[in-house]
Amino acid sequence: MYSVDLNSDLGESFGNYKIGNDDLIIPLVTSANVACGYHASDPVVMDKTIKMAAEAGIGVGAHPGYPDLMGFGRRNMVVTPDEAKAYVAYQLGALSAFTKKYGVPIQHCKPHGALYNMAGKDYALAKAICEAVYDFDPNIILLGLTGSELINAAKDTGLRACNEFFADRAYEEDGSLVNRKKEGAMIHDEALAVDRVIRVIKEKKVTAITGNDIELSIDSICVHGDGAKALEFVKKILGRLKEEGIATVSLKDKI
Amino acid sequence: MYSVDLNSDLGESFGNYKIGNDDLIIPLVTSANVACGYHASDPVVMDKTIKMAAEAGIGVGAHPGYPDLMGFGRRNMVVTPDEAKAYVAYQLGALSAFTKKYGVPIQHCKPHGALYNMAGKDYALAKAICEAVYDFDPNIILLGLTGSELINAAKDTGLRACNEFFADRAYEEDGSLVNRKKEGAMIHDEALAVDRVIRVIKEKKVTAITGNDIELSIDSICVHGDGAKALEFVKKILGRLKEEGIATVSLKDKI
Amino acid sequence: MYSVDLNSDLGESFGNYKIGNDDLIIPLVTSANVACGYHASDPVVMDKTIKMAAEAGIGVGAHPGYPDLMGFGRRNMVVTPDEAKAYVAYQLGALSAFTKKYGVPIQHCKPHGALYNMAGKDYALAKAICEAVYDFDPNIILLGLTGSELINAAKDTGLRACNEFFADRAYEEDGSLVNRKKEGAMIHDEALAVDRVIRVIKEKKVTAITGNDIELSIDSICVHGDGAKALEFVKKILGRLKEEGIATVSLKDKI
Amino acid sequence: MYSVDLNSDLGESFGNYKIGNDDLIIPLVTSANVACGYHASDPVVMDKTIKMAAEAGIGVGAHPGYPDLMGFGRRNMVVTPDEAKAYVAYQLGALSAFTKKYGVPIQHCKPHGALYNMAGKDYALAKAICEAVYDFDPNIILLGLTGSELINAAKDTGLRACNEFFADRAYEEDGSLVNRKKEGAMIHDEALAVDRVIRVIKEKKVTAITGNDIELSIDSICVHGDGAKALEFVKKILGRLKEEGIATVSLKDKI
Repeated sequence: MYSVDLNSDLGESFGNYKIGNDDLIIPLVTSANVACGYHASDPVVMDKTIKMAAEAGIGVGAHPGYPDLMGFGRRNMVVTPDEAKAYVAYQLGALSAFTKKYGVPIQHCKPHGALYNMAGKDYALAKAICEAVYDFDPNIILLGLTGSELINAAKDTGLRACNEFFADRAYEEDGSLVNRKKEGAMIHDEALAVDRVIRVIKEKKVTAITGNDIELSIDSICVHGDGAKALEFVKKILGRLKEEGIATVSLKDKI
Repeated sequence: MYSVDLNSDLGESFGNYKIGNDDLIIPLVTSANVACGYHASDPVVMDKTIKMAAEAGIGVGAHPGYPDLMGFGRRNMVVTPDEAKAYVAYQLGALSAFTKKYGVPIQHCKPHGALYNMAGKDYALAKAICEAVYDFDPNIILLGLTGSELINAAKDTGLRACNEFFADRAYEEDGSLVNRKKEGAMIHDEALAVDRVIRVIKEKKVTAITGNDIELSIDSICVHGDGAKALEFVKKILGRLKEEGIATVSLKDKI
Repeated sequence: MYSVDLNSDLGESFGNYKIGNDDLIIPLVTSANVACGYHASDPVVMDKTIKMAAEAGIGVGAHPGYPDLMGFGRRNMVVTPDEAKAYVAYQLGALSAFTKKYGVPIQHCKPHGALYNMAGKDYALAKAICEAVYDFDPNIILLGLTGSELINAAKDTGLRACNEFFADRAYEEDGSLVNRKKEGAMIHDEALAVDRVIRVIKEKKVTAITGNDIELSIDSICVHGDGAKALEFVKKILGRLKEEGIATVSLKDKI
Repeated sequence: MYSVDLNSDLGESFGNYKIGNDDLIIPLVTSANVACGYHASDPVVMDKTIKMAAEAGIGVGAHPGYPDLMGFGRRNMVVTPDEAKAYVAYQLGALSAFTKKYGVPIQHCKPHGALYNMAGKDYALAKAICEAVYDFDPNIILLGLTGSELINAAKDTGLRACNEFFADRAYEEDGSLVNRKKEGAMIHDEALAVDRVIRVIKEKKVTAITGNDIELSIDSICVHGDGAKALEFVKKILGRLKEEGIATVSLKDKI
């Protein structure tokens, strides 16, 4: 039987600032990427988020980012591999205080934003991140972009790696994401986006921006919970997955 | 045989900013209070500090503080017990990434600066801190001021508690520290300070600022490593401890 | 003819985090208290906020707070008067880069949150804030709670002071706000709240929590723009002010 | 008569963290680049630094950097031109509160670290910085690397620009600095470094790393005050300048 994980970024509020609808998206997804206080979140938010995710029984993951709250971790920063390694270790550890409190393991680690993107193309950075994860707990799954250096580094480090698929993004023939600045990078047609999700799960194929089909083996779909439209889209995906007999399962059950 | 722990605040550097002489003080003390990135330190500094402390074989402790880097955690902040609990959990977790990496346990937790002082007098705050420690690991020892609410709360929570003595501070008859603003609060005479240390260890007594002796049972002496004079004072204490046949041992061996 | 200023806290968003409905509240008020990057806001938000306020022609004020983004400047912090003075100077200066760019003066300064509350009761802190304002520009009006130390210190410093009235708060007989923890501190009855506003403007009187009337001379009403309900309440006040023939004018026109 | 400005980065301490020997370097230099609270410094440090610089009568400049205290502003960050413009405006404004207090103008603006380097090669970023400076005060001089995009953008914006020379760095034939990773990038021979300074002032020439002479018109030499060795080197330069009859003057007197 086919199955797939749905992951979403959660716990991104900070102090008096609220982002996302965690209570609405948690019942829909199977894995949560929880911010760890660098690009977003604070200890009170982390406590609350882990509690909700644990009660819902979904997989809990760390979502470490750059120390750039003002830029929400979305801006490229040139840090050394040693710095990145220490930053990821720090954030994993911080999150673990709350997963331990609520009795759930850290299922996976998915770097956030610019750290995810930069590490996807920079093996040394990716390796540093994966080593931090491995040193902390070799059972943690690394969630990264299909075919990225994060996946390569995870395997080299001895971590299990899971491949993430983006429903709303076009792909190059080499399996990388089409640069956002390029025309056609975003897939705005929701029906098409859902069709692509179903096909990549069942046939392990997606049509690249060139028009040619490429092979892609994926474990998880990234979905968003900020705003009514995003939530509707997740429900559409869930509806089609059900129709197609595709189960949604946590990342740990994909491996 | 008599014994005492010497503890010192370590790993307080931050980025390009250096504080303290960790390499010089580590060989002299038996327990390290390691800053966790809120009032001081960053992940790179924490990694380096834990590595040094682990190699030296001294007891490693967490030194959580208020989120006030600009004030070095020395300014009173009115946070709720729930906030304090989450902040301490976060910092303990963050530190644990590095203790885990270097294969040492978190021996103790000593709140820093204003958090230490406020929790010493505020039971609800102290209880919140102790619960965070207990939730994280009930084997962690709480290090606090003799007779303070931190010690009371630690016992109520089920944590082992150790009592800290300040060699350079005068005491009130109730065992609390004389307020720094009051005349005679600081003991500037080093010989007298050392004598008080020896007496409190051997006789469990110290002369209060009133001139009367009070009973004080202590486990650890707080010493500082910033500056040549501070280091000399630590060596003086160590010299006298040796002469008096008092061993220095890590906090875990005091219990 | 009667007149009053309506002031509101604006520009409190930060990076990817949005707070408030600045575009909806700006057309309703006559003075804006703009956050300066310590308890809230960032330079991009400040630029945008000052631009909007300048285009609307309302009075622009600085809203300096404690360096506590995580607590939104609402938590008491014990800083020295010298620190407070420097923090206020820094934030005033930072804001001035944007008021200068859009060709508007800094009309007033209203300390934010815990800084407002603490300075309201601590003359030394209030004086330090007022001196920072005076040093920066003696034409800036200090906006503070009626009868508070901020008003006293402003006068002593040579600043013009304006008195702020809270429509939704009960008053003690000495003109101070009833502590939020005390029963009856908040006035939830909107009609009553509006009546109190009209009366304090026309008769300079308000009924204290004791039931006795007290005299209160006020220049500005504090209103909020976060949420549909808050906006409705501002519109109710505006409606009644119009009915009663009370003009709304910027703070600078109240002096 | 020949003349040159000596500039140095000052006011880089933060809270309890001390960097540099501002009191020792201020008497030796003619222009101060004062950190503004983003990559280093805080309001209390800024107040103290501007006071010292004003009393010494040297030129006071803003030294804005990236919002990266943990990286001391030395790490490349990809921010948009609009963000950079707002960040520089914010920092200029903040600094002006203290220059205003001590009655001195902001003579110049020199971007710090990674912002200096990135803007040196990225015209759009450089232009955004120069526009922020021009909007704040068109009389402020932009201090940048000879031949860099910062100098180009300053001229295009209508700012006066001054060229900075690095005594301890090798130059490419196009006038750019040799990349630090390349062999020979640093000039460790102090006597040679001083000779190059004298020659570039008197003959407007320097020998590039290729061995060929290039023309370079410079206004200011960047010197450092951190550590005894750095201070000695500044004194050596000053000694030779005096012998050669070259006056040291503030940047404003170079234009």
